[in-house]
Amino acid sequence: MKNLGLGSGPEFDRIRAIIGRLGPDASGIGDDCAVLPIGATNLLASIDCSIEGVHFRTDWLTEAEIGFRAAAAALSDLAADGAEPIGVLVSLGLSGPGSGSQGVEIMAGVGAACRAVSAQVLGGDLVRSDKIIVDICVLGTAERPVRRAGAQAGDSVWVTGTLGGAGLALSELRGGREFDAALRARWARPEPRIKAGQWLASHGATAMIDISDGLAQDAGHIAAASGVALDIPLEQVPCWPGVNPMAAVVSGEEYELLATLPQAFDDAAKFVKATGLPLTRIGKCVTGSGARLTLRGLVLPPVAGFQHFDE
Amino acid sequence: MKNLGLGSGPEFDRIRAIIGRLGPDASGIGDDCAVLPIGATNLLASIDCSIEGVHFRTDWLTEAEIGFRAAAAALSDLAADGAEPIGVLVSLGLSGPGSGSQGVEIMAGVGAACRAVSAQVLGGDLVRSDKIIVDICVLGTAERPVRRAGAQAGDSVWVTGTLGGAGLALSELRGGREFDAALRARWARPEPRIKAGQWLASHGATAMIDISDGLAQDAGHIAAASGVALDIPLEQVPCWPGVNPMAAVVSGEEYELLATLPQAFDDAAKFVKATGLPLTRIGKCVTGSGARLTLRGLVLPPVAGFQHFDE
Repeated sequence: MKNLGLGSGPEFDRIRAIIGRLGPDASGIGDDCAVLPIGATNLLASIDCSIEGVHFRTDWLTEAEIGFRAAAAALSDLAADGAEPIGVLVSLGLSGPGSGSQGVEIMAGVGAACRAVSAQVLGGDLVRSDKIIVDICVLGTAERPVRRAGAQAGDSVWVTGTLGGAGLALSELRGGREFDAALRARWARPEPRIKAGQWLASHGATAMIDISDGLAQDAGHIAAASGVALDIPLEQVPCWPGVNPMAAVVSGEEYELLATLPQAFDDAAKFVKATGLPLTRIGKCVTGSGARLTLRGLVLPPVAGFQHFDE
Repeated sequence: MKNLGLGSGPEFDRIRAIIGRLGPDASGIGDDCAVLPIGATNLLASIDCSIEGVHFRTDWLTEAEIGFRAAAAALSDLAADGAEPIGVLVSLGLSGPGSGSQGVEIMAGVGAACRAVSAQVLGGDLVRSDKIIVDICVLGTAERPVRRAGAQAGDSVWVTGTLGGAGLALSELRGGREFDAALRARWARPEPRIKAGQWLASHGATAMIDISDGLAQDAGHIAAASGVALDIPLEQVPCWPGVNPMAAVVSGEEYELLATLPQAFDDAAKFVKATGLPLTRIGKCVTGSGARLTLRGLVLPPVAGFQHFDE
């Protein structure tokens, strides 16, 4: 089987089995977005499903936040390719009678996330479901999409923003503790890094991914797709206030961008000016395989990321 | 609110409420596909969600049939616009441990439905869910997409194939009765009418829809979107063997095409030659509103279609 650009883990084993069975009916699966040349540009498409009890809890988020978060997660895949969003199609599963206003509020959240990145709600399907389902297909365009493959030995590894906020919020919610408005916003209304992705794409990014499974695992996806090793000393990882780097690198649903850039790149200050976000060099690409996270020079054992299947 | 091209019914009331709240964030919702001009052509996109216990039962269909049927239903929306399929993105919800082979079989069915119309599986998402979910976003292109709006007074109303087989199969399954292989294939592996849709689009179709909610209701959608009335004598509706026209017009999930064509159109024989399918003139467009189904000259009361919400 060809290199699918997926790291290790039971969820990815399942995806590999499906792609193996599909054979020639499948093409290009395993990156953030599918890329389809149309006319002089490329159409990018991705789908991302959020389910009540798995991806969100109705006692932790308002209905509008459920919609916003689901849309932001899906739009983040466009950011990871440096794409310009067009819009979204949404399948919404609701439990039936009485859930009409719930659907309106969830879709208002979807609409707000779209508006923030100049995307439109293009269509949808409304179905009956015991659990709330918000499945979002995103469409965008990119003249030069940045894929997971493309990182080369010698490239530097960079990350936008700070990591660990999402994991911290989840931990506080699980413990029944309150937390401040900045952390709440970070967690409930994550901002897909569309402008950051476009900026990095136009400034030479060789590979890119959004951090949805946790930095450790997503770095592994870039390593697998590119056929290089990513060396990342934890001391260099920018962390959300109060979060230690061991927690930051396994925090999923961060929606920051992890990018590789040529070693000569030194325009981080211009990036900050253009996007208002930090851009931090956290490591380098070397010959080898996998993401190698180190602390005080010691290599960490393989770290499990955010998994939906726990076999 | 603008005319959304939707007939009456509680599901459509919900969709109208959502679109009203989205305001300018939504665009063009209410037809079979979203249409996006890209370069010299149009991208068409639609999403269609199938859920265990609502859209299918695992004791009535094999896993491959579940996947085939879900993909065929989604691809049928491309047929309704006369589009050429590109591919699909699939969100697949499975119940977790042990469901790996189930996912492979469902996706093999999706792949078979795609292969039959030269579409590819472009991407997907795999999530944990108590009930099986197969949500499919379809992408295609059309230089001149045929919409629900466009029917004019004087046009003739045509339908492909024969209607009522899906309803008959469902009734036999509910009654625990066996039925023949032809009906089983009709129901378990419906064929999206891609070639038929393209043929009708290139031969002057003024409006088109696929029959998923039942002819009575889908004719109402064309009437609402086009601002005309559709007069359809039941005596003219082509029925599956053993099905009476009263049952045929409320049979959902038929995936035949309902099209309006200029009165002068008389190339049905060429259509049959090109597609192998019957094409039957079942009525005409007149000034007025709604679908008016008649039997022996008497107008039937409004007929409820296939509904997922039963308030």
